[in-house]
Amino acid sequence: MKLDDVDTPFVIVDLDVVERNLRTFQDYCRTHGLRSRPHIKTHKIVSFARRQLELGAVGITCQKLGEAEVMADGGIDDIFLPYNLYGGKALERAVALARRIRLSLACDNEIAARNLSVAFSAAALEVPVLVECDTGAKRCGVQSPAAALELALAIERLPGLHFGGLMTYPPPRQQPAVQAFLDEALAGFKRRGVPVEAVSSGGTPDIWQAAEVRGVTEYRAGTYIYNDRSLMVRGVASERDCALKVVTTVTSRPVAERAILDAGSKTFSSDTSGIAGFGHVCEFPAAKMYKFNEEHGYVDLTECAERPSVGDRVTVIPNHACVVSNLHDAIYAVRGREVVDTLRVDARGRSN
Amino acid sequence: MKLDDVDTPFVIVDLDVVERNLRTFQDYCRTHGLRSRPHIKTHKIVSFARRQLELGAVGITCQKLGEAEVMADGGIDDIFLPYNLYGGKALERAVALARRIRLSLACDNEIAARNLSVAFSAAALEVPVLVECDTGAKRCGVQSPAAALELALAIERLPGLHFGGLMTYPPPRQQPAVQAFLDEALAGFKRRGVPVEAVSSGGTPDIWQAAEVRGVTEYRAGTYIYNDRSLMVRGVASERDCALKVVTTVTSRPVAERAILDAGSKTFSSDTSGIAGFGHVCEFPAAKMYKFNEEHGYVDLTECAERPSVGDRVTVIPNHACVVSNLHDAIYAVRGREVVDTLRVDARGRSN
Repeated sequence: MKLDDVDTPFVIVDLDVVERNLRTFQDYCRTHGLRSRPHIKTHKIVSFARRQLELGAVGITCQKLGEAEVMADGGIDDIFLPYNLYGGKALERAVALARRIRLSLACDNEIAARNLSVAFSAAALEVPVLVECDTGAKRCGVQSPAAALELALAIERLPGLHFGGLMTYPPPRQQPAVQAFLDEALAGFKRRGVPVEAVSSGGTPDIWQAAEVRGVTEYRAGTYIYNDRSLMVRGVASERDCALKVVTTVTSRPVAERAILDAGSKTFSSDTSGIAGFGHVCEFPAAKMYKFNEEHGYVDLTECAERPSVGDRVTVIPNHACVVSNLHDAIYAVRGREVVDTLRVDARGRSN
Repeated sequence: MKLDDVDTPFVIVDLDVVERNLRTFQDYCRTHGLRSRPHIKTHKIVSFARRQLELGAVGITCQKLGEAEVMADGGIDDIFLPYNLYGGKALERAVALARRIRLSLACDNEIAARNLSVAFSAAALEVPVLVECDTGAKRCGVQSPAAALELALAIERLPGLHFGGLMTYPPPRQQPAVQAFLDEALAGFKRRGVPVEAVSSGGTPDIWQAAEVRGVTEYRAGTYIYNDRSLMVRGVASERDCALKVVTTVTSRPVAERAILDAGSKTFSSDTSGIAGFGHVCEFPAAKMYKFNEEHGYVDLTECAERPSVGDRVTVIPNHACVVSNLHDAIYAVRGREVVDTLRVDARGRSN
């Protein structure tokens, strides 16, 4: 199949770039003695998770139970779920997962820990639970090293649970703050004689600094498999490192300076990843994508010497690859201009 | 099934509110002699499209061929596709649709018209093609009444095509500009002796002013079936008019002022519809949703006298309902707290 035979808009992923991205970061981890535990939220595809494991990852990370179930069905046997769980069904599902794979969990409060304890002790299982620490992201997580120790001790006391270490999702480029939190926490655990099996950190923007924070043993990176425009703008990836692109058609050229693409927020999502603009048009790098409607993308051609005509196809690197995957049931695996496979996005939409 | 038996996050749609929303606008159209042609992009569900037709809609609008194919498969026999089409497969698919339903199309340039002509004349079909006019939205569309007439005459000359009227997607609350464009255009068509079968306008923000623009014969409204927070903020709908909500759990309360929900941009999308904030928390109306990550929603509780605990469920009206539908394979139809049906979002992800 040729790309031209597929109606736009659609998503392509270059398998050669995927392979290179996976290998490069796995090599970095090997060199620095870091365990890699890729976050599959970006691709949600079983075969890519398997490839990550083949290359040396110790397991995978899933954000939601639904994703973990799909991956376990696909044969993945070591999954970390860094999320507080609540509700009878969710706990039942977690127990069912732990019966068939090595599951580890996280929590940031004692209510969540007690819920897990009731469910896992009733099932006569013991699950490793990491304590989520807020090292500056102001999202979830205990607020201090002392609170981390307190929750870890509570987890150790609760039947069915085992303190599995610390986890954090740090804000990009804040290594000193993360280091200060971890140094204090690890010293406190040591004084108390509580072993910390793992310290899990994550985030693609900092992958090339992943080994610079002392104490971190494991790294969760997601976006690095595909990369995207936000990582290009932040200097973490170049255009040739971007594996995922959207092929779209110029549907209208109502005025000289404006092109309208046949793809908008239902193809790209509206997530800008906090940077200006909505995508990088590979064939017209001076073009500025400045707005989306649901099925329309607005492009300002003012700075373009050459300009596309209606009916022309253009290839766009989205700002944020992870949310694009989650909009499409299937993507096209390509090598160059040739479609070599159609890949189902296995865990697409598994948000619960 | 009870709502509490479903793991969060998930989408509910209240069928009583849907029915009232559909009836109220259909009654408005009947009273004012407007033909209603609902845009199914909002719900993407065949049974809701059927209900819109039963209540008096003359047909439906689909933005993409994929949506139209799903609706035609579901028995809908009159579909308007207001979009330029390019590419051999897309034209083949449009011809195939026109063989089995009453299809009407739109275009805003002569290249698109010529492409349609080649495909439809080769199939010995004649398709009505409306001319898209830019009445101020600065998206697609011819730029002047004179250009509209010129394109209409080209369409009339091309074999396989028939000039079907004018269409516009006006910006909200710009009726005088729309009126000026249409008055001039309709006068020009009259002078030239070209009948204008239909003038199609659209947009939910202006539904209660739909009949105030002279010359408009048909109206495409989408969001009105569900409504959303953007329409609440703009005074077009009240909370009780909002049929679609997301049920989510407070997964973390790391500090007194912050709650983190287990739903983010992969559940709600990041589309704010241009208003501040990311959603209306029904149980805590003073709560401010201020940020999304993919699976986390950030809520500021500073203004809340009562505050939720971890594990509590809250119900959120999203800023923009249409993009939420498109993220979920299925939604739960409810009446009050009771789940009465699980509805597949038939055309979800049909972006091409």
